[in-house]
Amino acid sequence: MGRSELDPAIAARLKRNADGLVCAVTQQRGTGEVLMVAWMDDEALHRTLTTGRATYWSRSRAEYWVKGDTSGHVQHVHEVRLDCDGDALLVVVDQTGPACHTGTRTCFDTDVLLASDDA
Amino acid sequence: MGRSELDPAIAARLKRNADGLVCAVTQQRGTGEVLMVAWMDDEALHRTLTTGRATYWSRSRAEYWVKGDTSGHVQHVHEVRLDCDGDALLVVVDQTGPACHTGTRTCFDTDVLLASDDA
Repeated sequence: MGRSELDPAIAARLKRNADGLVCAVTQQRGTGEVLMVAWMDDEALHRTLTTGRATYWSRSRAEYWVKGDTSGHVQHVHEVRLDCDGDALLVVVDQTGPACHTGTRTCFDTDVLLASDDA
Repeated sequence: MGRSELDPAIAARLKRNADGLVCAVTQQRGTGEVLMVAWMDDEALHRTLTTGRATYWSRSRAEYWVKGDTSGHVQHVHEVRLDCDGDALLVVVDQTGPACHTGTRTCFDTDVLLASDDA
């Protein structure tokens, strides 16, 4: 993570964690499905806002991660919102194919801890 | 944060951050609105799963926070899901009133960084 070109007016509103990151929740446009949760630093947010492709900071690989560059499962960005205390982003996208690296549509499809009794 | 009664089979699947927390994304049942992002430790998750009321760990107050106990804006829990790498929860609720302490329905209603051109 180096210097970022993120709009200073936006950068001033971010409340980053100790690693300089904010949480990003990615949601499918229209259906409202929560696809995944990942992390962005200032530069990842800048790229997401300016390229139209969701771009995260990969904590495990310590590099920028343009979603779909490897898998083809790209996310076209339609909206980005910042929450009331500046430490979480909502990224509304059109997801191509599965969002999860396991091949499921979302990262929340497999492990159900509590199921609705009247879904 | 002390000892937790969380089911050991669930606890074993959690990948907590350095503070012992996992990220919780709270979503309105039916509409799919992403209401807020907060944090849970093992005990907050245990209480959420067993009481039917969304319960978080407040990092600023360093205490358990049963959503709505002060404001009346309670969250009745219908589903809880864990993501593929164990560090994020999706909590599907029925939200009473506004989810955000600012009085808006969600914590993402106010600060739009990028707006869809064809919503």
